[in-house]
Amino acid sequence: MRVYNFSAGPAVMPEEVLEKAAGEMLEQGGSGQSVMEMSHRSKEYETVQNECEALLRETLAIPGNYRVLFTQGGAHMQFEMVPLNLMVKGKADFVVTGQWAGKAYSEAKKYGAANLVASSEDKTFSYIPALDSSKFDKDADYFHICQNNTIFGTRFPELPETGGVPLVADMSSCILSEPVDVSKYGLIYACAQKNMGPAGVTVVIIREDLIRDLSGSKVPVMLRYQIYAENNSLYNTPPTFAIYMCGLVLKWIKEKGGLTAMKSLNEKKAAVLYDYLDSSKLFKSTVEKKFRSLMNAPFVTGNEKLDKKFIKEAKEAGFVNLGGHRSVGGMRASIYNAMPVEGVEKLVAFMKKFEEENL
Amino acid sequence: MRVYNFSAGPAVMPEEVLEKAAGEMLEQGGSGQSVMEMSHRSKEYETVQNECEALLRETLAIPGNYRVLFTQGGAHMQFEMVPLNLMVKGKADFVVTGQWAGKAYSEAKKYGAANLVASSEDKTFSYIPALDSSKFDKDADYFHICQNNTIFGTRFPELPETGGVPLVADMSSCILSEPVDVSKYGLIYACAQKNMGPAGVTVVIIREDLIRDLSGSKVPVMLRYQIYAENNSLYNTPPTFAIYMCGLVLKWIKEKGGLTAMKSLNEKKAAVLYDYLDSSKLFKSTVEKKFRSLMNAPFVTGNEKLDKKFIKEAKEAGFVNLGGHRSVGGMRASIYNAMPVEGVEKLVAFMKKFEEENL
Repeated sequence: MRVYNFSAGPAVMPEEVLEKAAGEMLEQGGSGQSVMEMSHRSKEYETVQNECEALLRETLAIPGNYRVLFTQGGAHMQFEMVPLNLMVKGKADFVVTGQWAGKAYSEAKKYGAANLVASSEDKTFSYIPALDSSKFDKDADYFHICQNNTIFGTRFPELPETGGVPLVADMSSCILSEPVDVSKYGLIYACAQKNMGPAGVTVVIIREDLIRDLSGSKVPVMLRYQIYAENNSLYNTPPTFAIYMCGLVLKWIKEKGGLTAMKSLNEKKAAVLYDYLDSSKLFKSTVEKKFRSLMNAPFVTGNEKLDKKFIKEAKEAGFVNLGGHRSVGGMRASIYNAMPVEGVEKLVAFMKKFEEENL
Repeated sequence: MRVYNFSAGPAVMPEEVLEKAAGEMLEQGGSGQSVMEMSHRSKEYETVQNECEALLRETLAIPGNYRVLFTQGGAHMQFEMVPLNLMVKGKADFVVTGQWAGKAYSEAKKYGAANLVASSEDKTFSYIPALDSSKFDKDADYFHICQNNTIFGTRFPELPETGGVPLVADMSSCILSEPVDVSKYGLIYACAQKNMGPAGVTVVIIREDLIRDLSGSKVPVMLRYQIYAENNSLYNTPPTFAIYMCGLVLKWIKEKGGLTAMKSLNEKKAAVLYDYLDSSKLFKSTVEKKFRSLMNAPFVTGNEKLDKKFIKEAKEAGFVNLGGHRSVGGMRASIYNAMPVEGVEKLVAFMKKFEEENL
């Protein structure tokens, strides 16, 4: 029997998508092959990858002057690739709202001057700091944010106004959860394993003019956006099956009504959970109301032993991966697109029962 | 109906493995989740990855002083990672036996002195050059070979004697095809998508003393072997589903009798194909006999139009991906572990019929 999986990623996938993938495992379409057996140079695979890209473009309404790249290595590889490719003048602005934003900031220091505009570390990243635009470097190569923080459960309620400086956003844990205006960004990156597909593929959406010619440079070939852009992400073998799975997820999103429908469902699920947390005498949210993520909701009882008891009993009742990130403890419920409303309602019912028994 | 797939990679997978994966797509073991939905920090996933590593260690008889790392980015990423991690004195020896060996050589030049020991480019890489050990640099950081050339269909009949210089081998297209003595190598790397699993994971087997401490260096974090070794390949999210599939393939190899059985089957398949090629008046192998690969067999008719006709008619008859690499043309049959003997026999029967009709 399938469990309710609240993992922060790799995360729950839509059951319909898993069923489709299982059904096509020995033969996709009329190809006589599994997608994972297809040569990446074959027409059959080309169709799979092009369909995935077309669906992503349609779903996110990506403007024509942006390229979609399929890379590997997760957001961590982007912490290196973004500065290696975008730092021309050698400086960039950073807002540090958690562990991933912090890593993006510290890795970038290897390549140039990384300017810390603001941080919310003083209160364990439980809010998004107000941004003082006088601290922005108007001459920076880019301005980096992590739009939704997976560990601490915050999200930017509005985007910083960076003027002519390209905004770069790590959207790993919020991509496809609601509509976004891609034209406001210079570059968006997101690993697949939260809202898009399995681990092993990382999507980069980059404004064409930011793709720098690095021919003849010492930058590792596989870390140049140019190589992916010039070769339709087929310079070498891409993670073909992972890209196919992303295509299936994107089809599922389209069938469900696209990102407007996703947003409405995600808001509904978040409301069920946060409303209960705000009314509970046992559990409480760790995040200031206006910065709460729609995707990742950390919460605590304030008693470590009770937290552990809750996580254990929840697992036994079929609600798994509710432990907080190993760096912070407590609990966290990740409620991505593929988590049904009913899953959150049942979790809340279970929490209420646990509260009655343990208060 | 499934086809006979002679793709050079991504390549045919064992049907039993695909069936197993399809059956577990909605729930693996008693976990209530697909492997691709599992948190990479969960006990459930840890078991999957540890089993895959243990099977690889058993199958290849990997000595205890070697580490197994699961990386991303394919062999191409290794063309960068090997010099970035192993070049301490800043020099390495290379034998160029084809396109991949050539790329490994040219990328390494960015990081130090790459010494070309020998090349077989003069005869379109149709042989493995004799190695003059006086050209070896006794002080090199490593000696690099591509053990089996996927495009030109050659393989090293014996390993170079490099003395104290660590031998580094790209085994992407021959790993798991026959037993090897891992202790003769300093480092082995192989992308999965030929004999091991789906595209998206690249295995590195490295002797512990070669794992260099790069803390504080400018080397991108994700390109340091140290990071993978210290974190059991879990510094960030690994390509979990691809690793699971490799585990299923390794289980299949074990059930079939391990690498001794694989070698015997592969020799049988290669003999069926090469014996026919050597007797044919229409088709001929492009490789000198003693250097012929067990895995990739390129062949031509000598007439480009006829080559195209053959590839087209073969596809219609259910033998797919028989075109040669886009850089060389002609035909190529890749006959990896998962290609049954019957597939090669049927291909040869088809070729005989084509020969009768077109000679």
